[in-house]
Amino acid sequence: MDTPVGPREQSESTDSAAQDSYDVIVLGAGPVGQNVAARARAAGLTVAVIERELVGGECSYWGCIPSKSLLRPVIAVADARRVDGAREAVSSPVSVQGVFGRRDRYVTLWDDTGQANGIKEIGAELIRGHARLHGTRRVAVATSDDELVVLTARHAVAVCTGSTATLPDIPGVSQARPWTNRKATDSSEVPAGLAVVGAGGVGVEMATAWQGLGSRVTLLARGHGLLPRMEPFVGELVAQGLTDAGVDVRTGVSVTELRRPGGAGPVTVTLDNGTELHVDEVLFATGRTPNTADIGLETVDLTPGSWLDVDDSCRVTGTHNDWLYALGDVNHRALLTHQGKYQARIAGAAIAAAAAGRRLDRTPWSAHVATADSHAVPQVFFTDPEAAAVGLTAHEAERAGYRVRVVDVNIGESVPGANFYADGYTGRARIVVDLDGGYLVGAAFVGPGISELLHSATVAVAARVPVDRLWHAVPCFPTISEVWLRLMEANRDLQEERRP
Amino acid sequence: MDTPVGPREQSESTDSAAQDSYDVIVLGAGPVGQNVAARARAAGLTVAVIERELVGGECSYWGCIPSKSLLRPVIAVADARRVDGAREAVSSPVSVQGVFGRRDRYVTLWDDTGQANGIKEIGAELIRGHARLHGTRRVAVATSDDELVVLTARHAVAVCTGSTATLPDIPGVSQARPWTNRKATDSSEVPAGLAVVGAGGVGVEMATAWQGLGSRVTLLARGHGLLPRMEPFVGELVAQGLTDAGVDVRTGVSVTELRRPGGAGPVTVTLDNGTELHVDEVLFATGRTPNTADIGLETVDLTPGSWLDVDDSCRVTGTHNDWLYALGDVNHRALLTHQGKYQARIAGAAIAAAAAGRRLDRTPWSAHVATADSHAVPQVFFTDPEAAAVGLTAHEAERAGYRVRVVDVNIGESVPGANFYADGYTGRARIVVDLDGGYLVGAAFVGPGISELLHSATVAVAARVPVDRLWHAVPCFPTISEVWLRLMEANRDLQEERRP
Repeated sequence: MDTPVGPREQSESTDSAAQDSYDVIVLGAGPVGQNVAARARAAGLTVAVIERELVGGECSYWGCIPSKSLLRPVIAVADARRVDGAREAVSSPVSVQGVFGRRDRYVTLWDDTGQANGIKEIGAELIRGHARLHGTRRVAVATSDDELVVLTARHAVAVCTGSTATLPDIPGVSQARPWTNRKATDSSEVPAGLAVVGAGGVGVEMATAWQGLGSRVTLLARGHGLLPRMEPFVGELVAQGLTDAGVDVRTGVSVTELRRPGGAGPVTVTLDNGTELHVDEVLFATGRTPNTADIGLETVDLTPGSWLDVDDSCRVTGTHNDWLYALGDVNHRALLTHQGKYQARIAGAAIAAAAAGRRLDRTPWSAHVATADSHAVPQVFFTDPEAAAVGLTAHEAERAGYRVRVVDVNIGESVPGANFYADGYTGRARIVVDLDGGYLVGAAFVGPGISELLHSATVAVAARVPVDRLWHAVPCFPTISEVWLRLMEANRDLQEERRP
Repeated sequence: MDTPVGPREQSESTDSAAQDSYDVIVLGAGPVGQNVAARARAAGLTVAVIERELVGGECSYWGCIPSKSLLRPVIAVADARRVDGAREAVSSPVSVQGVFGRRDRYVTLWDDTGQANGIKEIGAELIRGHARLHGTRRVAVATSDDELVVLTARHAVAVCTGSTATLPDIPGVSQARPWTNRKATDSSEVPAGLAVVGAGGVGVEMATAWQGLGSRVTLLARGHGLLPRMEPFVGELVAQGLTDAGVDVRTGVSVTELRRPGGAGPVTVTLDNGTELHVDEVLFATGRTPNTADIGLETVDLTPGSWLDVDDSCRVTGTHNDWLYALGDVNHRALLTHQGKYQARIAGAAIAAAAAGRRLDRTPWSAHVATADSHAVPQVFFTDPEAAAVGLTAHEAERAGYRVRVVDVNIGESVPGANFYADGYTGRARIVVDLDGGYLVGAAFVGPGISELLHSATVAVAARVPVDRLWHAVPCFPTISEVWLRLMEANRDLQEERRP
């Protein structure tokens, strides 16, 4: 992008600190902050982006980017091993050094020069420092040069500060120095024994990666299944895959204490069932805390440390909804990079419209409303097998009052494309059909190679395509996508059964 | 399926041969014939299926099934080799014996017992023999027991006899005994030098497979690009991939003569540019001929050997449109297994409705109309890179009079999920937007791992999802599907440029 830097105007001030005005001020230069900055710049607005750590954020350096660069080699080798004729070509496990080298390259060795230049290239100002709200439309920045700069936003301030791993409040936790997503993605040493606490996306993905890299992983899930936000069968097949890979999967257990005398060496993990584990590292993947404790929320009558409630244009609800936006993890709508970027596109369009004096279009699914956040959030976990879902689970749909038909199919013998992909394929799929609307409100898939298949369901759910029309969306033979044919046939058969 | 066999009724006859009546008679037990039989049985109709060769047809024994079982090991190894950390685990090429063993298993050693049982299990009668139409609603079968049986269809006869490879009429062709799709998929010997003539789907896939299995392949394309029915850039990247794999790709050349003295040993291939090739086998993948030369078309005033024109319910047009259906390759609408199966579902529903005295719903996209055949035919080639497209190319759309916007993006740096899939990813995507309708009329993708991505485009094209709504179909980070985000962003930018 070669948009020139917009004009910077000085506004009057009584502060002694340096002061600048921008149309839009963005707190946090992760993918979400970058996207909202880009949209504002594209609308001709001046933009400052403030980042206290690395430009690119958690996702680029300790999230999806390193985790997926670690996972893919593990899956690629597993995929080849599942195919007769290819299996014989694989003689050894993944190269650990090769994998770490790959990860280091994708995180650019935790150097953010390239992404910082990206901010400048769109014509936004990048300010390095710690930003705090400083009353209405104002932001105080403690810069990395130890200066205090107070900035004024003419139109909007967007809080895109993300979240941090939550550590449980149990005895011994601080001395044990447990891993979080950060160490789990930037380590270049493979712990011989690794306990992974938490069976959500981070937990199962990191269990997959580190087991693949040679750790003996024990996965500890508090609930009775993995990936509790997806359909139960998804977690069941992922648990089976982890077990097959050698992971010790234990469900229904909680960690009550950690012991690591001296803060180094082996860790003893005490579980609530009275057993103990002896491992080399413990990873906690047990939730996220919003990065809102020290961003000056108190200066605008909001509660420090809280998630920020927003409307569907991502404006913070309450008294500040004409200028204060919260995007990405901090608004707690969907803690996913892609959904944060979506919010940034929507809010960016809304900010641009408001700045130009245009009325926001508040119709659902319009350009200024992040409607997908409540109806069509997709998610993929790059486990083995892969897990993917969009929209509501059957249980969620029923609880929300939908009258639904649940259609399940096994992805195996009946889908030739699946068997070509992997000999002896095991997988499963579900669609949840709203009987009154006649369209899908949710879909879930689990099996090798299904990650790219999810978007077909996302289009169907987000666009509310009638199932009668999906009948004409012919999946290619022989792709795994033919699971859609089996789903549509099973749906038709259930539909016909209901008729007299 | 455990539907019981329906009643067989004898109808009166003046023929001396045995005679039976069925509600529906199906000529050909490939996937298309099997599907229309299943739909008719599900509606409670009696069905006879006649097959002169193997139950399962060309697709099961000499088409997609063996070709994809040969291709997948080659691609799985190539995929692993593209990923640092996995690459090091691969020490040798595919195991040729492993691949052939895999293929043999998927074609059940060319034994159709299982599929024949499948026909019986749905309660249809399987008759082995050569079927010929014998006037209106009648079919004469020369059975494999050397009997002649004349059957009468109460409601419908469905011709699902498929097609056969076309051989060119050039000097030396019969003595050279060239390969067609049959030998290219059932051979268990790897020719050292193989010339593949034809750059459509069969040609490029078989060039990929046999080069991967160790042949030195020369691909001879008459036109100036490969895969001429897809967007030009698709064929360009596939040509690059074949070249990188070691295939000698020659475009703009035709074969004028073959010489194989004695019908064995090396083959000399003469090209129209005056050069000669010396190879061990020649594969012709230069088109298909309908299997209609000897099926009694003359008894119902149709031309033997011709493709059969049908309406959108797949009824043969002309005087026989109340009982004679033609499905799959023979109707020349789309020579693809999945599209033939789709036609079978549609025609099966139409036959059932007509048999029950219900009026057909002739509205486009209804249950009795194969509308997707003319708007949303998907196709995937399992080459390296994979190639996939649905709907119209830009050129086809313009020629059809659409006012279109063509949106192109490279799948590389801008799509992190692509790079995770394969280091140094190269790929490309296009959508063709109907500016008046506001929806996609076509899409094309080329790159590693994109085959399962196509169905998202098929849903969008078949359901005519407005591009404004696709904006809310958020692709998951970091999947290759995020190419959709780049396409949508590029479309928005082009749209905004058009505004004053």
